[in-house]
Amino acid sequence: MDLKQLKEEVFQANLDLVRHNLVIFTWGNVSAIDRENGLVVIKPSGVAYDHMTAEDMVVVDLEGKVVEGHLKPSSDTPTHIELYKHFKEIGGVVHTHSTYATAWAQAGKNIPILGTTHADYFADDIPCTRDMFRQEVEGEYEKDTGTVIVETFHGKNPNHIPGVIVKNHGPFSWGKDAHEAVHNSVVMEQVAKMAFVSLMVNPNASMNPLLTKKHFDRKHGANAYYGQS
Amino acid sequence: MDLKQLKEEVFQANLDLVRHNLVIFTWGNVSAIDRENGLVVIKPSGVAYDHMTAEDMVVVDLEGKVVEGHLKPSSDTPTHIELYKHFKEIGGVVHTHSTYATAWAQAGKNIPILGTTHADYFADDIPCTRDMFRQEVEGEYEKDTGTVIVETFHGKNPNHIPGVIVKNHGPFSWGKDAHEAVHNSVVMEQVAKMAFVSLMVNPNASMNPLLTKKHFDRKHGANAYYGQS
Amino acid sequence: MDLKQLKEEVFQANLDLVRHNLVIFTWGNVSAIDRENGLVVIKPSGVAYDHMTAEDMVVVDLEGKVVEGHLKPSSDTPTHIELYKHFKEIGGVVHTHSTYATAWAQAGKNIPILGTTHADYFADDIPCTRDMFRQEVEGEYEKDTGTVIVETFHGKNPNHIPGVIVKNHGPFSWGKDAHEAVHNSVVMEQVAKMAFVSLMVNPNASMNPLLTKKHFDRKHGANAYYGQS
Amino acid sequence: MDLKQLKEEVFQANLDLVRHNLVIFTWGNVSAIDRENGLVVIKPSGVAYDHMTAEDMVVVDLEGKVVEGHLKPSSDTPTHIELYKHFKEIGGVVHTHSTYATAWAQAGKNIPILGTTHADYFADDIPCTRDMFRQEVEGEYEKDTGTVIVETFHGKNPNHIPGVIVKNHGPFSWGKDAHEAVHNSVVMEQVAKMAFVSLMVNPNASMNPLLTKKHFDRKHGANAYYGQS
Repeated sequence: MDLKQLKEEVFQANLDLVRHNLVIFTWGNVSAIDRENGLVVIKPSGVAYDHMTAEDMVVVDLEGKVVEGHLKPSSDTPTHIELYKHFKEIGGVVHTHSTYATAWAQAGKNIPILGTTHADYFADDIPCTRDMFRQEVEGEYEKDTGTVIVETFHGKNPNHIPGVIVKNHGPFSWGKDAHEAVHNSVVMEQVAKMAFVSLMVNPNASMNPLLTKKHFDRKHGANAYYGQS
Repeated sequence: MDLKQLKEEVFQANLDLVRHNLVIFTWGNVSAIDRENGLVVIKPSGVAYDHMTAEDMVVVDLEGKVVEGHLKPSSDTPTHIELYKHFKEIGGVVHTHSTYATAWAQAGKNIPILGTTHADYFADDIPCTRDMFRQEVEGEYEKDTGTVIVETFHGKNPNHIPGVIVKNHGPFSWGKDAHEAVHNSVVMEQVAKMAFVSLMVNPNASMNPLLTKKHFDRKHGANAYYGQS
Repeated sequence: MDLKQLKEEVFQANLDLVRHNLVIFTWGNVSAIDRENGLVVIKPSGVAYDHMTAEDMVVVDLEGKVVEGHLKPSSDTPTHIELYKHFKEIGGVVHTHSTYATAWAQAGKNIPILGTTHADYFADDIPCTRDMFRQEVEGEYEKDTGTVIVETFHGKNPNHIPGVIVKNHGPFSWGKDAHEAVHNSVVMEQVAKMAFVSLMVNPNASMNPLLTKKHFDRKHGANAYYGQS
Repeated sequence: MDLKQLKEEVFQANLDLVRHNLVIFTWGNVSAIDRENGLVVIKPSGVAYDHMTAEDMVVVDLEGKVVEGHLKPSSDTPTHIELYKHFKEIGGVVHTHSTYATAWAQAGKNIPILGTTHADYFADDIPCTRDMFRQEVEGEYEKDTGTVIVETFHGKNPNHIPGVIVKNHGPFSWGKDAHEAVHNSVVMEQVAKMAFVSLMVNPNASMNPLLTKKHFDRKHGANAYYGQS
């Protein structure tokens, strides 16, 4: 994969966060990985979206060392790297503070699977991570944010649940590339909002697991039949 | 009815879903029927709204066989067909995952009739379907989604209640043509939102049936006097 | 007052409802009165806002008879007339189905005065009318909607509380002219939304009456000192 | 600091409130201070944003006397001045009636710190002031609104908690200049909305103080490492 092209993709994906109303100011970041060369392209830290160019994207290796670029990478870079290291099939990662997904993170609750909108993309509840320990918060905080996400996925398939909410922080999502990771972040925000309203209307709302399986498989299973492919 | 014109109408009605903020990505579809020839025109499956043209609309017969068009029809096509077969007077069908109507579907509750906004279009609560059985989910799922909707309307007049919410899924609406079906989908989303707020403020909110009848008849009864006709 | 100018004002005020996101479709109407000649200018019934011109505004007398115009007046015209007859100082009336004010109407609860935003315009709770009786609903329904509003203001000053919510229906507001009536309808929607959130956060929220008086008088009292006049 | 430049900054900051959807009509005001000359530049009272120019900004001294400008200053000017007098390091002040922050003010509750979005800007709960006494409401109301804010910050660092909600009224925020004060008002509205949703989902939501400290220090501490500086 051409690095120049990857920078362009990551740049556009960052702007898409704004277009989808998932971020204000600099509250979000997208990265993508070139698996062949072990290089991650990520948004620079604290740079306003409307002043940013594709050239401002920062290239780091899997140790987090800047390989190319004149700006500091996003402070969340170590979290992104940790996800790329452990979730071997993902190609893009997104972090936002989108309103409803973040509100669930602040509530410290999994976003429950209550409908087919959710099941079309996520095969189960979107999990919320545990509280971080003192040594994690005071030590390598951003790296360990990734570690805690990976721990949360012990026994779960990150390709079938392409997102998480970090307790008291906000959502991370991923996908086969930056574009799909952004798509999943939009879905998370939408299902977070709908789950909130559903539970206000009926605190006992739940979903038949048969229906979950049907919808997830319809789009992602071996016999998927949604879309044109 | 000219098929070319029907395609244009269905195309425009699909775009109207976006204009009214009822769908993101490809989460919605509109169809219309040519009753004379038994042909249904429907949105193709999984195609982005901003790349779609009127020519992309797919024509199917009442068995779901593609009669015209180069793309696969919406995966929800069998549901639309089932509605056209049983609700003899409808000319257009809409399905969306609009936020508040879907949230009620996820809650598994009828959208209660609480005001004249609702009564101007729907003569009673907007019903929520029952849970689907295993053989329905694992069998002809999309067709049986239609069957369950039809079952829900046993003893109800679909012309007087032009919409339904499918449990854990989302809203379907209909009308005399695609345009009216879209109009009713906008109304459903709006009354779903208002009913949510009303019940948060007063869990015992309810509406005098006399007032329901008055408003529905004012627009739809034999002596309707709303509008210019 | 020139009728042609009044039509223009009423036309613009109707469009302002759309600009302020208070109406979709044809769900709102504005009128204004020429007190000298006893003539009311009002939006035609069921006409889409984007096809409407100032010339489409309908002129009726205080018996509701059309004096000028080629279209039928809003079906709510008798309610507007009733308000002009009893609230002698008002010059404009607005009716909408704006989301949060309508939700309170559906809840059947007064919108409680909880903050200075409310007190800057309304000196007390915005009242909700009583249920209408059978003979009112089945008889001169629109006229009696006005009668019930007037009854609700028995002992209240409509100039100090320039709006009401009609139970299970929606908000009416008024002002010295069409422009001010629209302004008050925007305020009602905003305070309705904020009161909803406040009560969710604290069901016992309330406001010190001293503060209410202070804010209302600051804008409307004999010694008003807000603004440039 | 050039007064002409300060007027331009204050003017732009006022328009930013509109761009960020924090104000409708004239419901907000921004000021900035020239510390060297003891002069405050502030929005005129009750002037519509779309008719306003930089030249309309009013210059007052720390007694509130107009030094330059042809319009009356915002009626909230004495509150702004009180904040400048007691919070020695701030350079800009903002007041709005933004929806969710105002709803919390109406609820009379502190906006609790529940997530890192909040902690990135505010080191603790955003406090709500006490009820004002009769002599404060009936006396120098606007000045004493400032006094009560200052009292609320007894024992708190206004640089670490750059905002407050005034009970039954709405939010005030501040910063090193007008631009930063506006930025903080946007953050307050966003965290107010998210805290509302979080508490609806989980009334016992709370945040680990370790995480609060980490995030606040990451942006504001001696070893801050967020952004490019």
